[in-house]
Amino acid sequence: MFLKEFEEFLIKHKPEIQGFHPYLERAFWEMLLNGGKRFRPALLLSVVDAFAPTMLQNAFLPALALESLHTYSLIHDDLPSMDNADLRRSYPTLHKSYDEVTAILVGDALNTYSFYLLSQARLDSQVKIQLIELLSKDGGISGMVLGQALDCHFENQKLPLEKLQFIHLHKTAKLIATSLKMGALIANLSSSKAQEIYDFGLKIGLYFQIRDDIIDCTATKEEAGKTTQNDANKNSYVNLLGLDGAKEHLQRLQEEIFNILDTFDKKLKENLLKVLKDYFEGNK
Amino acid sequence: MFLKEFEEFLIKHKPEIQGFHPYLERAFWEMLLNGGKRFRPALLLSVVDAFAPTMLQNAFLPALALESLHTYSLIHDDLPSMDNADLRRSYPTLHKSYDEVTAILVGDALNTYSFYLLSQARLDSQVKIQLIELLSKDGGISGMVLGQALDCHFENQKLPLEKLQFIHLHKTAKLIATSLKMGALIANLSSSKAQEIYDFGLKIGLYFQIRDDIIDCTATKEEAGKTTQNDANKNSYVNLLGLDGAKEHLQRLQEEIFNILDTFDKKLKENLLKVLKDYFEGNK
Repeated sequence: MFLKEFEEFLIKHKPEIQGFHPYLERAFWEMLLNGGKRFRPALLLSVVDAFAPTMLQNAFLPALALESLHTYSLIHDDLPSMDNADLRRSYPTLHKSYDEVTAILVGDALNTYSFYLLSQARLDSQVKIQLIELLSKDGGISGMVLGQALDCHFENQKLPLEKLQFIHLHKTAKLIATSLKMGALIANLSSSKAQEIYDFGLKIGLYFQIRDDIIDCTATKEEAGKTTQNDANKNSYVNLLGLDGAKEHLQRLQEEIFNILDTFDKKLKENLLKVLKDYFEGNK
Repeated sequence: MFLKEFEEFLIKHKPEIQGFHPYLERAFWEMLLNGGKRFRPALLLSVVDAFAPTMLQNAFLPALALESLHTYSLIHDDLPSMDNADLRRSYPTLHKSYDEVTAILVGDALNTYSFYLLSQARLDSQVKIQLIELLSKDGGISGMVLGQALDCHFENQKLPLEKLQFIHLHKTAKLIATSLKMGALIANLSSSKAQEIYDFGLKIGLYFQIRDDIIDCTATKEEAGKTTQNDANKNSYVNLLGLDGAKEHLQRLQEEIFNILDTFDKKLKENLLKVLKDYFEGNK
């Protein structure tokens, strides 16, 4: 499908970094190359492929922008003052391979780079502005960064479900919803259709987070390919609802997701089912 | 002049941050409010005021975007693993007032926010894309971040003048040149004129950095309003050329700058002279 092509595109798009830094160029692209599951690009490309397959080539740069922003967030989340994680995608985290300065700066650079990539896409300027608006909103202080700040701040305080949900909505779900909506904007769907797809993405994002909490509680780090059982003090669905409660919550959400999928156009449903299946089978 | 109006605009544009974080909203805007000298916004507005004064109102958002990106870079530069500075603009640095997590996240958010602001400007989409392209290039891995990474990496190694210049060109000068060129793009100047203004900005940026090195070596922190005499191990013009050598270099550059200014249109020259004078008198 389009993910193999995206992977080739990503490898081809490694930028040359000028100057005389001994490893900045390597560090900048390393986390992007290290076999991420490309879930967000796959969501974006699923929508474009379903509604405007001739636009697929033009959607690769925006998909890479998403992956670039997501990767910066992983690098910064892993920093010593945040999650202090040693392992990510089965590789040492960037501040472990190199140093903290490099990890902070590569994260900063990938954040900015995602907007550079969007500016370079072969799309109408107006569409590009919509993509930039959306990504900067849901990827920033109104979205992902807000969620991460809340998550860190309330690490040792038990929160009610409503607040926990607010955190995950912002930390994880909005960027996933944005991935789908970016596809809808590229495919030039109506704003009501784009919104419908966005709302579906929010549910996927919550599903994703609850599932992650459960994995973090049950898997070893070899199985998960990252530092696990790291969330004992964190607000998580498992800590709040218990393992069985979290699994039940996940089950209910999964049913909702399938019900919505049934209302989607055939090709979109097919694409999304495949992406979700690939993602979750590769990440048990 | 337009800087008073810009200051009011900035204060009015403090975003409301949703959720229940006790101090994220305050921390997000605090460094922007704490009396920066608004040098980069002033450069942008100088060009717009000179060539398209009716566009001035529409140039405030892009000017704020510049200040937002610049502020993120200050917050991250001050982090413990980087310059480990306690004081900035005569206030405690963000990681001192709050904590390191907040400083990293607010920096991240301001970086992303600058592109959100550009997406919101009342300008043609094509112009906005040009602004985003320029800022993300010179503010990221091809510009400011590359310069900062080199500066940190070669902290304890003496570099030849050529490499020192490469660092400062990227770390400081490109964003200053971009500030001017963003003004030129908003004012719809020809690309050769925009390039001329950009090249002038590179010289201003180098002047700025050499002057900063000299201040860092000679001023107390009370005079400079930030941690000084912090660069003993850093590659700086003073460490490389000696204090007198650096002052001489600065003098020569100043002459070049005045020569170029003489070739500029009257109004632009007037505006820039005023901005440079205000800036340097407020920062001896």
